[in-house]
Amino acid sequence: MLEMFEPWLIAPIAALISILAGLYFYRYVDKQDSGTERMKEISDAIKEGSKAFLKREYTILAIFVLVVGTLIGIFLPSPIWTSANPLDNITLTLSYFFGAFLSALAGYVGMDIATKANTKAAYAARDGLNKAFPVGFRGGAVMGLAVVGFSLLGISIVYFITGDAGAVLGFSFGASALALFAKAGGGIFTKTADIAADLVGKVELGIPEDDPRNPAVIADNVGDNVGDVAGMGADLADSYIASIVAVMILGTALGLVEIALVFAGLGIFASILGAATLRIGAKGNPGKSLNMGTYVTCIIFGILTLIASYYIGYDLRLWGASIVGLAAGVVIGTTSDFFTSESKSPVLNTAEASKTGTATNIITGFSYGLQSVFPPLIGIGVAAVVAYYLCEPLGSGYAVFGIGMAAIGMLSIVGLIISNDAYGPIVDNSRGIAEQAGLGDEVIRITDELDAAGNTAKAITKGFAIGAAGLTVIALLATFQSEAIAALVEAGKSQAEIATLVNFNLLNPKVMLGAFVGIAMPALFSAMVMLGVGRNAERMIKEVRRQFKEIPGLKEGKEGVKPDYARCVDIATTGALRELLPASTVTLGVTLAVGFIGGAQALGGCLAGAIFSGLLLALLMSNAGGLWDNAKKYIETGVHGGKGSDAHKAAVVGDTVGDPFKDTAGPSLNTMITVMSLVASLFAALIVQYNLLGMLGL
Amino acid sequence: MLEMFEPWLIAPIAALISILAGLYFYRYVDKQDSGTERMKEISDAIKEGSKAFLKREYTILAIFVLVVGTLIGIFLPSPIWTSANPLDNITLTLSYFFGAFLSALAGYVGMDIATKANTKAAYAARDGLNKAFPVGFRGGAVMGLAVVGFSLLGISIVYFITGDAGAVLGFSFGASALALFAKAGGGIFTKTADIAADLVGKVELGIPEDDPRNPAVIADNVGDNVGDVAGMGADLADSYIASIVAVMILGTALGLVEIALVFAGLGIFASILGAATLRIGAKGNPGKSLNMGTYVTCIIFGILTLIASYYIGYDLRLWGASIVGLAAGVVIGTTSDFFTSESKSPVLNTAEASKTGTATNIITGFSYGLQSVFPPLIGIGVAAVVAYYLCEPLGSGYAVFGIGMAAIGMLSIVGLIISNDAYGPIVDNSRGIAEQAGLGDEVIRITDELDAAGNTAKAITKGFAIGAAGLTVIALLATFQSEAIAALVEAGKSQAEIATLVNFNLLNPKVMLGAFVGIAMPALFSAMVMLGVGRNAERMIKEVRRQFKEIPGLKEGKEGVKPDYARCVDIATTGALRELLPASTVTLGVTLAVGFIGGAQALGGCLAGAIFSGLLLALLMSNAGGLWDNAKKYIETGVHGGKGSDAHKAAVVGDTVGDPFKDTAGPSLNTMITVMSLVASLFAALIVQYNLLGMLGL
Repeated sequence: MLEMFEPWLIAPIAALISILAGLYFYRYVDKQDSGTERMKEISDAIKEGSKAFLKREYTILAIFVLVVGTLIGIFLPSPIWTSANPLDNITLTLSYFFGAFLSALAGYVGMDIATKANTKAAYAARDGLNKAFPVGFRGGAVMGLAVVGFSLLGISIVYFITGDAGAVLGFSFGASALALFAKAGGGIFTKTADIAADLVGKVELGIPEDDPRNPAVIADNVGDNVGDVAGMGADLADSYIASIVAVMILGTALGLVEIALVFAGLGIFASILGAATLRIGAKGNPGKSLNMGTYVTCIIFGILTLIASYYIGYDLRLWGASIVGLAAGVVIGTTSDFFTSESKSPVLNTAEASKTGTATNIITGFSYGLQSVFPPLIGIGVAAVVAYYLCEPLGSGYAVFGIGMAAIGMLSIVGLIISNDAYGPIVDNSRGIAEQAGLGDEVIRITDELDAAGNTAKAITKGFAIGAAGLTVIALLATFQSEAIAALVEAGKSQAEIATLVNFNLLNPKVMLGAFVGIAMPALFSAMVMLGVGRNAERMIKEVRRQFKEIPGLKEGKEGVKPDYARCVDIATTGALRELLPASTVTLGVTLAVGFIGGAQALGGCLAGAIFSGLLLALLMSNAGGLWDNAKKYIETGVHGGKGSDAHKAAVVGDTVGDPFKDTAGPSLNTMITVMSLVASLFAALIVQYNLLGMLGL
Repeated sequence: MLEMFEPWLIAPIAALISILAGLYFYRYVDKQDSGTERMKEISDAIKEGSKAFLKREYTILAIFVLVVGTLIGIFLPSPIWTSANPLDNITLTLSYFFGAFLSALAGYVGMDIATKANTKAAYAARDGLNKAFPVGFRGGAVMGLAVVGFSLLGISIVYFITGDAGAVLGFSFGASALALFAKAGGGIFTKTADIAADLVGKVELGIPEDDPRNPAVIADNVGDNVGDVAGMGADLADSYIASIVAVMILGTALGLVEIALVFAGLGIFASILGAATLRIGAKGNPGKSLNMGTYVTCIIFGILTLIASYYIGYDLRLWGASIVGLAAGVVIGTTSDFFTSESKSPVLNTAEASKTGTATNIITGFSYGLQSVFPPLIGIGVAAVVAYYLCEPLGSGYAVFGIGMAAIGMLSIVGLIISNDAYGPIVDNSRGIAEQAGLGDEVIRITDELDAAGNTAKAITKGFAIGAAGLTVIALLATFQSEAIAALVEAGKSQAEIATLVNFNLLNPKVMLGAFVGIAMPALFSAMVMLGVGRNAERMIKEVRRQFKEIPGLKEGKEGVKPDYARCVDIATTGALRELLPASTVTLGVTLAVGFIGGAQALGGCLAGAIFSGLLLALLMSNAGGLWDNAKKYIETGVHGGKGSDAHKAAVVGDTVGDPFKDTAGPSLNTMITVMSLVASLFAALIVQYNLLGMLGL
């Protein structure tokens, strides 16, 4: 019996179950009480703003996706006029559209549930922590399960129809391209709204934060959902899909295309079991529960995959490599936590430094941010090398495949990781709603506790996100090399020639030039995105000022006079995408230019350079941003003079500097590198055939 | 006749002439009038403080140099108990001591003349710009000519005695190790003194800047000379020596050991001619003159080396590679200038952003700093690749040698570059002295003009420093490879084995692990150094407070009561070195650990990673720092509210954040990478023989 069952079908089955489980959790959350009239009003405004944002974003992105899809159809996998089988081009285009569509859908679902679960969790907090916690957590789980369910189902469908890992590459590119917009665009949007709301409202007019008269206030609330929920989900989803594709392609030559699907499917089962068993007693600690859920899921995953490997007959070294990845995720998370934790020396020293002024706060925080890159980079490097050597004895091609398996291992439980991560912004919003709707001190205390748990869980989930992105891009570099080799074999090159043409030796001039371009790319991208925030904020500030000037009675708070919230959301959305477009175009343009000028070696060097500096900058910016945020919060607990003191003012500036670091630029870099790597793999065949230096005989 | 003359003897001859020319300029400056009694008083205090600093620094460093020298004697080039010729160990140790000694001597000479030339140039400004300019410039030229003279003479002596490029490596390591302390130690010192003087003086007691009652004020003045003059000279000298050594070692197998010495010698002639012809008329523009001097020197260098190549019989492709390097230096300088120039959009936009507050000033400046890395990185990459392909047709080994020649070309005119660079802090001090000594508005206007010229020249000299460091470390990576190959040949390995063992392929696990460690190193080093500034400042603040409390009459400014300036200098010096020691030890320790664990491939990856992230961070920090500084200065001209406005306050914080970026961490990174590379080359033979992964059969 067992022999007749294709093992990889675990993937679509698990994906469907994941979607069903997500639906179940959705209904659970949906049937909770939304609370008082005032709460519903606040919630509806945020929901409306979020939908306005998504509608605008998806309308613009549809055009972008259509244009890129058409270009794919014409040029990939080979130009349609030279193609032996033009159907390949159509398949790839459709996969691309499919990937983009499913990614957009996952974002929509996540936003929808997040804007529901926040009020419901706040209202449930009246009945105690153990009632509110499941609402928040299951809201997050809807997002997590939808993301992995849609992703893995999509991959399975494309693979089932085409039987070709190459076509799945198109799917992955579609998902990543959309993720880049969701992440970086959402990041620009949220900071834009934040700055504009504060500057015109608090600074110019002196009205309180979150005052409903402020036309930017809804955009600001929407921003939290856009950036944290939709963007964060897109980040992990994008690494998740890319790692599966990378391992499928690397596995093609080894007859192991399907192991990635099997492990990913089992990861979903582990995540669902982990999520389902997760609850707390009346006196329980929600933070510990979330982390316990992660550990339980890891253990279930380890057992399930061990059993599957035994029955299907996968070598246990491959299983070992995936466990190495999983362990590395936990270790990286725990060490990263040190640099942003409110009880450890980096945050304490940065808070202390705030006493001597803003500049010392910034320098100290930035310095610790620089230090914080050390443990995770070593962790990623060690995980990759251990996985490599573990699988090397299996034969040629297995060693690099092992790195891919480590990435798969780390990402397999991503369903639970996203759940834990989405939980954070949901309960953060709950706290805000509880405060605005006046639910009383006890409810606020409970939502505070829920919020703190989100921060505890974040340390480990962040470790997974960083580690997974690192291992995935290494696997994608190997994928690019393998695609280039395949194209060279097809072109009839000899083994010796191929070995030279795809050797990414750092002292080769092409690799070196590519690497120098590559290390500059993440810096350039971050700069463009962060400067975009400033320009976009200016546009929105103008609009907010205009409304206060032109809408009679708005400033005075006259009964029935409402600002035009939707117009603010619209301006911030359009502006964010307008700022992002040049950054994305430059990224894609430079990647292709390096490839078509320098060939496979230059592009390999470029990807490696981008991986190195991308991980460095992403870690620096995310950790420094988190650290400044927590240093400010620490001072707000009353130390060094507490709120309103000079130290606090300095820490607020640090936090403001850290905002675009940790919410806009830092987290977009993983996705940016993934997009670069996928483009490289997609164009590998064309690039080895047509490149300037190669044509010049260099 | 010509055949009997060994061409490389150009080097020692040029070096001696350089030292003589330096002496001539020294006497020229020395016989100028030092000005009024008040001026002499100020100048003497600074001189005394500087000497106190150097004495303290050199005393501590002597111990460090002795310890490291002893270790070299025991272990290098091979452990003394296994050594066939123990004399080699002694030679290497002596070369190391010699390099350290000459570097220290050059630093001493530079400090001495800088603390003299500043008052003299200020006094000469009474007679007009065309009288003051040569005093400032020739003061700088003493430093420039002394540095290249001592360096090249030292290399020539070591080479003459040993006839072995490997021994020169020891000399280079000695010079670089000292340079690291001079640069990074000086950088910590200068910011420490700056913060302590400001915080206790201006903030706590409300006394004016540069008030003689402040015990930290002399340390602050000393800091300018320590950081800018001695440190900057050490930076370029260290790249200069390293590039010559790299090319000598790479040239050994090609029979071209001596071309580096010939080109370097001719570069000195070109620099002296350029410096000697440099003067301005009464209405002249000193900034243009400095740049014109650079261009003239480049052209003279091009002609001299072309003629020499023709007569000695060097292939013109090698000459071409050196010209590529020279041209790249100019191009990189011009593009870098864009990001820090007061008339270009980055500075203007950052000044504009200051109006919305400190956080936007920081984010905008930081973003432009990130952007600024793009042109120079591409410039370095393109120069390396062009030089590579230019020399490749000459045969195996020539291509990488070409990159070394590009570095030599860029650095050959370093005598003039250092002169122009040292001119800046000298005339900057002149301005301060003119103000303190009350020399009147016209003199201050002239010193302002001299100061502005220093900034104009700085753009191009900085381009040279960055580009040269980039090309030099690439050449050093190749040198490391070549040393590893030599050791493997000696160990009797086959060609095929060697090709595998030294291939720096990025997808090799050892290279990859090394690269991940390597990219983290410059981040860690910068962080340790910047955090050290804060800790050291605290020590000094305590001492300043103590003096104000314990010395009766000091605070009140009682006649005859003087603070203990020397004690402050002493505390800041000892503290700076104490903070630097862990950072240096970690750098050396990690480099060796990577090598002895992972072998040559891991260490090659580590060097490459350090080069990538080191250049990225160095460019980011230097340019962002310069940009913030100029944005503040731009506001001080009266725009956006001018001095005292909110925009100005924001810009001052930006400038303060930028200070340790551009004066402490950023400029130390080049030297740090050079030191790592030299250590790698020195230990190459030991590392290929004894490394953990190799012993485990991986």
